[in-house]
This record gives sequence, C-alpha cells and structure tokens, in this order.
Amino acid sequence: MKALVYEGPGRREWKEVPVPEITAPTDAIVRVDAVTICGTDLHILKGDVPAVEPGRILGHEAVGTVTEVGPAVGGLTAGDRVLVSCISACGRCRYCRTARYGQCLGGGGWILGHRVDGTQAEYLRVPFADTSTHHLPGGVSDESALMLADILPTSYEVGVLNGGVSPGDTVVVVGAGPIGLAAIGTARLFSPSTVVAVDLAQSRLDAAKRFGADVTIGAHADPAARVAELTGGLGADVAIEAVGVPETFELCTRLVRPGGRVANVGVHGAPATLHLEDLWIRDVTITTGLVDTYSTPTLLKMVTAGRLDAAPFITHRFGLHDMEKAYETFSRAAETGALKVVLTRE
Amino acid sequence: MKALVYEGPGRREWKEVPVPEITAPTDAIVRVDAVTICGTDLHILKGDVPAVEPGRILGHEAVGTVTEVGPAVGGLTAGDRVLVSCISACGRCRYCRTARYGQCLGGGGWILGHRVDGTQAEYLRVPFADTSTHHLPGGVSDESALMLADILPTSYEVGVLNGGVSPGDTVVVVGAGPIGLAAIGTARLFSPSTVVAVDLAQSRLDAAKRFGADVTIGAHADPAARVAELTGGLGADVAIEAVGVPETFELCTRLVRPGGRVANVGVHGAPATLHLEDLWIRDVTITTGLVDTYSTPTLLKMVTAGRLDAAPFITHRFGLHDMEKAYETFSRAAETGALKVVLTRE
Amino acid sequence: MKALVYEGPGRREWKEVPVPEITAPTDAIVRVDAVTICGTDLHILKGDVPAVEPGRILGHEAVGTVTEVGPAVGGLTAGDRVLVSCISACGRCRYCRTARYGQCLGGGGWILGHRVDGTQAEYLRVPFADTSTHHLPGGVSDESALMLADILPTSYEVGVLNGGVSPGDTVVVVGAGPIGLAAIGTARLFSPSTVVAVDLAQSRLDAAKRFGADVTIGAHADPAARVAELTGGLGADVAIEAVGVPETFELCTRLVRPGGRVANVGVHGAPATLHLEDLWIRDVTITTGLVDTYSTPTLLKMVTAGRLDAAPFITHRFGLHDMEKAYETFSRAAETGALKVVLTRE
Amino acid sequence: MKALVYEGPGRREWKEVPVPEITAPTDAIVRVDAVTICGTDLHILKGDVPAVEPGRILGHEAVGTVTEVGPAVGGLTAGDRVLVSCISACGRCRYCRTARYGQCLGGGGWILGHRVDGTQAEYLRVPFADTSTHHLPGGVSDESALMLADILPTSYEVGVLNGGVSPGDTVVVVGAGPIGLAAIGTARLFSPSTVVAVDLAQSRLDAAKRFGADVTIGAHADPAARVAELTGGLGADVAIEAVGVPETFELCTRLVRPGGRVANVGVHGAPATLHLEDLWIRDVTITTGLVDTYSTPTLLKMVTAGRLDAAPFITHRFGLHDMEKAYETFSRAAETGALKVVLTRE
Repeated sequence: MKALVYEGPGRREWKEVPVPEITAPTDAIVRVDAVTICGTDLHILKGDVPAVEPGRILGHEAVGTVTEVGPAVGGLTAGDRVLVSCISACGRCRYCRTARYGQCLGGGGWILGHRVDGTQAEYLRVPFADTSTHHLPGGVSDESALMLADILPTSYEVGVLNGGVSPGDTVVVVGAGPIGLAAIGTARLFSPSTVVAVDLAQSRLDAAKRFGADVTIGAHADPAARVAELTGGLGADVAIEAVGVPETFELCTRLVRPGGRVANVGVHGAPATLHLEDLWIRDVTITTGLVDTYSTPTLLKMVTAGRLDAAPFITHRFGLHDMEKAYETFSRAAETGALKVVLTRE
Repeated sequence: MKALVYEGPGRREWKEVPVPEITAPTDAIVRVDAVTICGTDLHILKGDVPAVEPGRILGHEAVGTVTEVGPAVGGLTAGDRVLVSCISACGRCRYCRTARYGQCLGGGGWILGHRVDGTQAEYLRVPFADTSTHHLPGGVSDESALMLADILPTSYEVGVLNGGVSPGDTVVVVGAGPIGLAAIGTARLFSPSTVVAVDLAQSRLDAAKRFGADVTIGAHADPAARVAELTGGLGADVAIEAVGVPETFELCTRLVRPGGRVANVGVHGAPATLHLEDLWIRDVTITTGLVDTYSTPTLLKMVTAGRLDAAPFITHRFGLHDMEKAYETFSRAAETGALKVVLTRE
Repeated sequence: MKALVYEGPGRREWKEVPVPEITAPTDAIVRVDAVTICGTDLHILKGDVPAVEPGRILGHEAVGTVTEVGPAVGGLTAGDRVLVSCISACGRCRYCRTARYGQCLGGGGWILGHRVDGTQAEYLRVPFADTSTHHLPGGVSDESALMLADILPTSYEVGVLNGGVSPGDTVVVVGAGPIGLAAIGTARLFSPSTVVAVDLAQSRLDAAKRFGADVTIGAHADPAARVAELTGGLGADVAIEAVGVPETFELCTRLVRPGGRVANVGVHGAPATLHLEDLWIRDVTITTGLVDTYSTPTLLKMVTAGRLDAAPFITHRFGLHDMEKAYETFSRAAETGALKVVLTRE
Repeated sequence: MKALVYEGPGRREWKEVPVPEITAPTDAIVRVDAVTICGTDLHILKGDVPAVEPGRILGHEAVGTVTEVGPAVGGLTAGDRVLVSCISACGRCRYCRTARYGQCLGGGGWILGHRVDGTQAEYLRVPFADTSTHHLPGGVSDESALMLADILPTSYEVGVLNGGVSPGDTVVVVGAGPIGLAAIGTARLFSPSTVVAVDLAQSRLDAAKRFGADVTIGAHADPAARVAELTGGLGADVAIEAVGVPETFELCTRLVRPGGRVANVGVHGAPATLHLEDLWIRDVTITTGLVDTYSTPTLLKMVTAGRLDAAPFITHRFGLHDMEKAYETFSRAAETGALKVVLTRE
C-alpha cells in the first residue's frame, strides 16, 4: 500500500510500505476512506517534534472501514464505518478512567502519526480499537465526520469548555486559523452575546465572520482598547488563545475581565511572560490542555442532527494518491486559503 | 483617639487623630477591640502600594463593637460585636451580586487601610456596614475571630477552593509563612492524603508540621524530585503558591501532575515565566485571586464549632497602645518567630 | 391612583387607592410604564394563596420609571428606567449573599403582590430597591424587558439551568403554556440536539413548534414510547415539568434516562408519587425551585443583543386602565390564545 | 470447589460446584482470599430480586489473587492481588466512557452474584477484568480492602458526593446500619460542622457516635424539631437516606433547608410520597443512584494512607467454609450486632 512517510526534517514521501497487521489483541485494521492533514504534521516535517522518528507514517485523523479486528476487540466488526480519533485510549489507566484520554498512561494519548504509524495511508492499525474509535451513523458524511477527529473536539474541549463559555458572555478568540474558527463555531453552541475574533490577516477575519464572529479586530486596531469598549471597560469573560506564540497568549491575559478565563489551545514552542504583578489580584483562571475527545460523541450527535456544520472547514478535496499535492496546498495556506483539505479513497 | 498613620515611605506613627464619623447612610462606626497587622501593611510602609497616601490609617482586620450606625444600616445596632472583614462590599454591583466581593465595582473591595482609613485605631468607620461585617456568636473569642478577617478566608478561598483540593489529593504548599500555614490548615478540611510544605527556613517547616503538613521539603532538597517520588512520578494534584516571587510560582507549575491545579495566593511584584512549551499539553489550570470573603460565614461556623483552630496563628499579644512595638515584632518575624500578632483594647 | 385590588376569593377590582410612599430608607417609588399578569395572580384570585390578604394590590412584574428614592438607595435616581423583578432581595442575608434571592431571609423573596402591594397599579413602592431592580439600557423595549420580570428567568433558572441542559441533549418539556414555551426558548441557548414538547392541546403544541420544539407529543401519543424511540431506548437527558400536577411530574420521572435530570418548574398544590422502587438505581436528579433572578442581567444582555427574542410571548396589548379586560383575556387563555398580555401607561 | 448457591426463595447452600473457567478474552479467574455478605444478598434470598435465578452463586465483594487471565487482559497477571468491585465495567459504552460504570450498557454494571456467578466461592470469574478490578498495594490488609468493594464507595458516591457535603455543613444521616455508618464516616472527609444520625435502635445510634456522629436522634425524639433547633430553624444542608422505606425518605425531604440536598442511598421496594405542594418552592435537590465505583482508587489511597479507617465495620470473622454460619450471624444483625462479616480463605 501507499503511505505518507516522514523521512527526517524537511523530507516526506508518498511511497509503498507494507500493509499493517494486527500486533495486539486490542488492535483493529482500518481501511482509510477519508483523511486530512493537521498543522501539527507540518511541525513534525520541520523536525520540531523529535519523538517522531524517520520512517513514521504521519496523520492522526481518519474516517475508514474496519477490515480486521484482534481477538479482544468487542465493539467492532469488519465492515464497520468508524471515526479514528486523534487520541487513543487504553481505557483502564487512572486518566482513562476519568475520561482524560489525552493524558493516557497506558500507551495511548496522542500516538498516531507520532509514536506509531498514522492515518495518511491506505490502511491503518488502530491500537486500543474499542476505546479509540467511534461508530458513524448513516446520516453523517465521511468528510463531515473527519472534522471530528481532531479540530472540533480540540477547539471545543480545550477552548470552549475549558474557557467555560456561557450564555451572554463576551468571548475573544485570538487567532482565526482552522482551530480559532472551530472555537468560534463551537463557542456559539453556548450562545455568547458577542464573539470577537483577533487576527492580523484580513482574509482570516473574513472567515471568522462567516464562522460566526460578531466583531473582528485586525492588524491596525488595539485589541485591548476595542474589547474594553465592547465590555464597558471590564474586559472579556473568556479569551481563547489559538495561535501558539507568547505575544498572543500575553494578549489574552490582558483582554479578560477580573474573574475571567484564558483558555490556551495553541501549541507553544517558547515560554511566555505571565504578568503576575497585575494578575495576582484579578481572579483570573488560565487553562492549558491536549484534547481528550470525551466530547466526540456529543459533537457527532450535533453534526448528525444538523446542529453543527462541519462542512465549511473543508476548502480543498483530493484523491488519496494526491497526498503530495494536498500537502503543498495545505502548507501554503496563506496563498491557497486552505483551512482543512480532505483526501478520499478513489 | 490614637491610630497608626502612614506618613510616607518608611514612616509610620501611632498618633492622635480625630474620631471617625458617619459620612454615608450605610456606614457604621466600630470601636476596635482586637486588631492585627498583615504582611501587606509592611509592603505599604515600604512605599510599594502607591494608592496608599500619606495620612492614611492602616489595617484591614478587626474585631470590634458597633457604636453607631447610619440610617440605611438595617442589620446592625450599637453594641453588636462584629468581625470587620478585609473586603468591603457595596452589595449591588455585578460582582457583589455573584459573591465576588473582592472585585466590587461599587466602591468596595479592599479599601480599608488602603483607599479609606483602616482598623489600626481605636475607632473605625466601616463603609457598606451591612455587607462588610459579620455578627460574632458568643462562643468565639475576639482573637480567634480576628483570624477570619483575612488570613483564613484568603488561604481557603484563593488557595484551597481555587485549587480544588479533594479527598485523597497530594497538595504542595510552597511557602510556610502565615498564609502558607493557613493554607495547610484549611486544605486539611478536605482530607487530602498528603500535604507537603516547601520552604527554605527550617523554623517555618517546623511550624508547617504543627499545622498539619505530612512532608516538608527544605533548602537542601529538590522539590520536584521529592514530589515525583511521593506521587509515583506523576506530580502533585494541587500546588498552592504562598510566597509571591517568580521562582516559587514557576516551581509550582513544575510540581503539578497533568490535569493538576496551581493556585496562586502570593502577592507578586514582578512577572514570572510561564513555560507554555511544556505546559500547553499538560492540562494545567492556574488561578489567581483576591479574597472575596464569601467563605467567612462557613469558616466562622467551623471555628465556633471547634472544627478549625485559629489560635495557633497567634504568637504575640499586645495592648492596642503598644502598636509600635507590635509592628517591630511583626516586621522582624525571622528573629521573633511572629506569625500573627494581636493587639487588644486595654 | 388606580390599582388592581384583591378583595377576597373570586373578587378583584380596579379601583382608586392612595399613591404609595417611601416607608423604609431602602425603598423606591416607581411609576409603572408596563405591567403584565401571571398565572399565579389567577391562583391568588381563586383564594389558593392564603398569605395574600384582601386589600392587597396584585402583580409582581413591571417596567417603570423611578420617581423617588429613599435616603439609603445608592444606585437609583428619579428618572431611571428600571425592571422591577418578581423577587426582592434584602442583599445581606445568608441566601442573598450567595445569590439565592428567592429564599431571602431578610424580608425579601417573592413579596410583591403577595405580602406587600404589587405592580398592577399606576405607582409602586419597591422595597430593597437597589438589589431588587435592574437598570434598562436604551436598546430594549418596555414590553420585551417585561418578559424578564418573571417568565424568562423562572424557566431559565429553575428549568434549564437546574436541569443542566447541555449541547447535544434531548430535552423534554412537559407543558407548553407560557412557562413551558419559555423553557423551550431558553433551553435552545445551550444547543440541545432535540427539544420535545408534550401537551394535550394542539394549539399549545403549535406554539411549541414556533418557540423551537423539534418534536411534539400530543394527547393521542404515548410520551414514554415516543421519547424512547427518539433516544435509542435510553430516555431523555433532561425533563422539565411546566404544569404543576402530579401526573406530569410523574411522567417526567419516567421519561429521563439513567443519569438524567428532572427539573420541576410547575407550582404544585398536591403531592406526587415518587417511584423510588424504580428510581433508586437510576441515578436520577430531581430539582425544585423558586426563581432567584440571578440570571436576569445575563438574560437582559441577551435580549438587548438580539440573541433571545422576548416578543413572541406577547399576544395581547392593553392600556393600563383596561386592567379588567386584560384579566378577562388572560384568564380565558384556552379561548383567547393568550400567552402574556401587556398593559402600558397611556 | 465450594460456593454459596441460591436455590430459590428462602434457600441457599454452600456446596460443591465446578471451578469457573475463562469464557471471554477479557475475563480473569480470581482465587477468593476474603469475601463478605451484603444486605442485598439477604434480599435476593428472600426472592425480592427476580433477576437472580436459582443456581446462581451469590456475592459481589471480594479480595483475591488472580490465577489466570484471558488473552485480552492487559493490566493483570497471575499472582496479582486485587479488589473485585461490586460493579463491572465494559469500559467502552457511553456510560463507562464518562465513569458512570454502574449504568454500563455493555454487559457490566451490577452483574456479580446477580446476572453471573459471584464472589462467595473459592474461585470467581471476573468479566471485563481490566476495568472491574483494582490492584492492591502492600500496605492495605485484605479485610480493609474488602470494605472498598461496595459499602465505602456506595455511601461516599451516592450519599456524600451526590449530597454535596461541604465544610461547615449540617448533615443528617437517616439510618445507622452499615451503609449509614459508612456515610457518617465518609461525610467526615469534608469536615461538616455537625453530623446527625437518626435511627430507632439505640445500639445503632451508639455505633453512629463511634463512627463520628455529633448528635443522635432516637425513637422518642422528633427529628424535624431537633434538626430545626440545631440549625437556627432552617434545616439541614444535606440529608442522606440510608434505610430504603418511604417514611425515611419522606423524613429526609422534611429535614433539609431551602436549597438543601437529599441523597438517597437506600434500596427501595415501594413508592414514596413527594410533597411537591411544599417542596416546589424550596430549591431542593433529590438524587438517587447506584454506586459507580469511580471513587474506589481515591478511597483506596485514603485507606492505605491511614486517612480512612475501614476496620471498625468488621464485627465478625469466619473461615470461608463457615459461610453458612456467617450468613446466620449477618442475617440476625439486630441480635448479633453484626455490621460486616469477613470470611477468609483458610
């Protein structure tokens, strides 16, 4: 079969590799029907994630069809259509027992396309298959379901739920890339009164408007002044960081009101400055987190019921064998306007 | 009457001043029966709190007797024995309506000995008296009640409750001064399995043991290694910062397990470094806060019922007119071993 | 001035009475600009609420203009446009300090049109005016604001928030009168996937559809079977009781899934049977409650921002002096289709 | 091997049966080292639980040693010392994924000694072994650990946690049998100011005192009057029902204050009357529930650390082959004073 293989910093290849086989009784083999590329895959390709070794098949998001299950798999059968989640869960460690699967101590967590071979391939071995996949109902398309593998639960759990978004809130989302847009869209589920998007690029702010932002703040405005104006001088109830650089995080801590919450979703590579000399007295709550995917069943229900629209994230579609072209398109998002690209089995 | 007056950086005087009068219909005048000195008063005296102007009477903690009430005061009468809380509450702003009195927008919050004259005097004007005092039952002594004016609710609300201390937890308290000791004592109300105290001074660690710490970590040990050893390598469930310098805050963020909480209680004068490059993936929650005193009625009930012992905080006792001597003793705590000093009307 | 006076069971009169005066320093006098009638007023008129004595002016919902304030009122001035809430709050008792105003121990709670004279009059004395009224921003009409005096916070707090409605939930509302419709509308703020309305009258089910119900269950269907069908046999996540008779409450306890919640909003006059022999093992949570109005500022923000539409509740409009006619129309709701009637100062 | 077999209503026998074998890849076989008898077993013997068929081995609590594991069991090996929980968890259904194991839809829940053979035997087959057992650390004895199989997590989760017991609360426990005593003991973990025990038998009230009750109310007192007296007329913050008859449940609803909580732990066989005509306005929360055992790891940590003493529950000890005698003793608890009896492998 073909797969997208990481060949060391800066190098990737769509090439022939062996079809995966069941190695543990809790494994399943899944034929990949639809797959996408994550910003994290680009980081890996730059060599920023040293845990990923050359030879690794990338990708941690897929929709597919079960072709084989190990003897200990009880909830799946060959032929089942499933969502393969970015988070694998052993199902029995301390963290899995409290639905914090992202922190799994039993060999799960984020492993696909990271510590074991991933989803950008024709077939995939899924460890802990019973607790790491979700059955898909008939009413949801492959590509909509694919948005539930990572981007929607990540922005919802780590941004919206950690941020405690509530009816009537003023919510600021800093960064209007795919994750920020998903945070805007899923924040709407709690009926905030005002959602504000902050970004430097006008094209992303235009997208933010389409995803439900009420107010946008661009390169030439002062976010703190604008948010103060919108909130009677108090500040936002919730600020969601969706970029991953110190400046945007620090901005979030300045934008929230006393008693407000900063929910960090961005993947950071450098420390930020925390102005405790101002913040110690302001009752601020700051959260960080990796997605756990405990919300995936709920979000799947919402997408299936038509309450949440996953389609607008998908800007480009390819056949699976156009993997290289899809990477090209996705990695030049500023030019191509790519949010999420979907590759489907031809 | 006599009062302790701030005369500008480095200068204080116990001197004759006019007896306060009712200026607003919601005021009460209280005769001070017992008063204490807070670490914050020492900061003010150094000139670190510019909002405090020369001529200001210091102090924000007192137990006293109501001598006069304004026409709009409904819940107090002359002769009532009351606790004067460090936080005043207008009772009708957005924050007061949700019990977040520390952030009062209506002229309250921390004002005593800060923006209006305080408690280190023979008499005191208490603004918003109905919502800024607590009736004291017969069974609680003046000096025990006095510990409820600031130190106990602060450590309990901002440390223990913000930290979400729960039965079975491993809780690390960094800093074993009065606030850290109060955090150790009030954390015990939730039956953690292990409370760890971290401090550089052996005398403070000895005190920590007396207040209920199970394990102490001193100057010559590596806190991270020791906490890892106590928690199977995972880290603490909760870390409470009770010092107020960048190093101790940063230590707290290294000591908590994935999914853990850092509750900052310390008053900071400088920014800290937040290692988001490590923390973004670790599901950490960080809280800051000024006390709201919403827990004061509960703590008062606990002290009255003998469930919480306030007495051990009191290391030195003075007459009210020995104010200068009390300041001397309290400001040289390293030598004198002072935790809280109490001054009572002779 | 004129007012609607309860003259004993079955008797009411719109008649001349003295204009109210300030009797406590925390009082305000408000000129009534818009007022409505509640189902509870009809209960009082039947003699079902013995605490209401003959001679009492009825009504607990109003929008008006402050004409005079007592000396202790700090947040209101003559000329201010305010919402008079159905709940008065002393602002300093144990319950008020934790935002549970409905249970006020200091002389507040539901008193207007109950223990003191109410809103169905040209002028009104509002006790504890600072903590029992809400300033109205320019962008919200009198009649929309009036829906925030009782019906919207009641259905939202006691139904939707007590019920813990969450994104993706199946929510059943039993009873599609004004309160049930408001529960349907405010449940929508949390993006349930399916809202089901149960009622015997087709006209009310039609209204339920307009207010956002996805599914309606009428007189000829079996609610338990239909809800089981909609939920894969499990039952609803939340059932909201909005009628007030034993049968509908018992139905709610049969409709929820294991782990589900029953939120009672209905006013009951008789006991219900609780089938603990079935329920003990099913992890069910049942809540009751009087509205506290802690959510009124949030709902006001939502209505002002256009996120919540209060207008559809208003089916009939009258001048204030047509009070008798308004009562006629409202008390024959089955014929007239009345939901809420609004009377405004001419 | 020998086992205690249910032979139909009123009949049980300790008799020779086949040693169990692994039938599913997720099974483990456990040699029983310590076992106890639950009040529920007596109900089954009376024929009150029709789902239990003649021929069934009873018992749902054990400490034992793993002798064999199925091919899909990943976390256990022969020789491991484990607690066998009263609740089995498939680990992958909707309820298991949110730690609500008692409601497992995948074949787990309460099955041992109910729908499959149980623990009162020399050997036991444990389904879903990975997610239905807990490793035991060296520091905890078999008999202390055994108290974690049912009684402690049941009273803690369904009574104390559902009841929301908090520092300073007044908690009433109605019924001072083993479950009520465990509720008293585990309520203490949250430092209530007053724990009140209500029972008709003086011997049980004496036991309640030993387990930590501050006040006891016996046959000749009026519980409502006494609780009112203890709470300034308001009522208790939390009432825990630990009997299982309508009268005690109804008493609980009368004992709580406005805003209070009633946590039902008792197993009921008949409906109760819910006085909604009084309760609708009182902000009461009522919960029911089967234990989930999500708290077992925490409680095990507490027992191991010496923070919770399980020993006092054990009043009688027997060899495993004295099963009949143990049943005799336990079923005549009023005479024998039995709380929990422990049988150990000789």
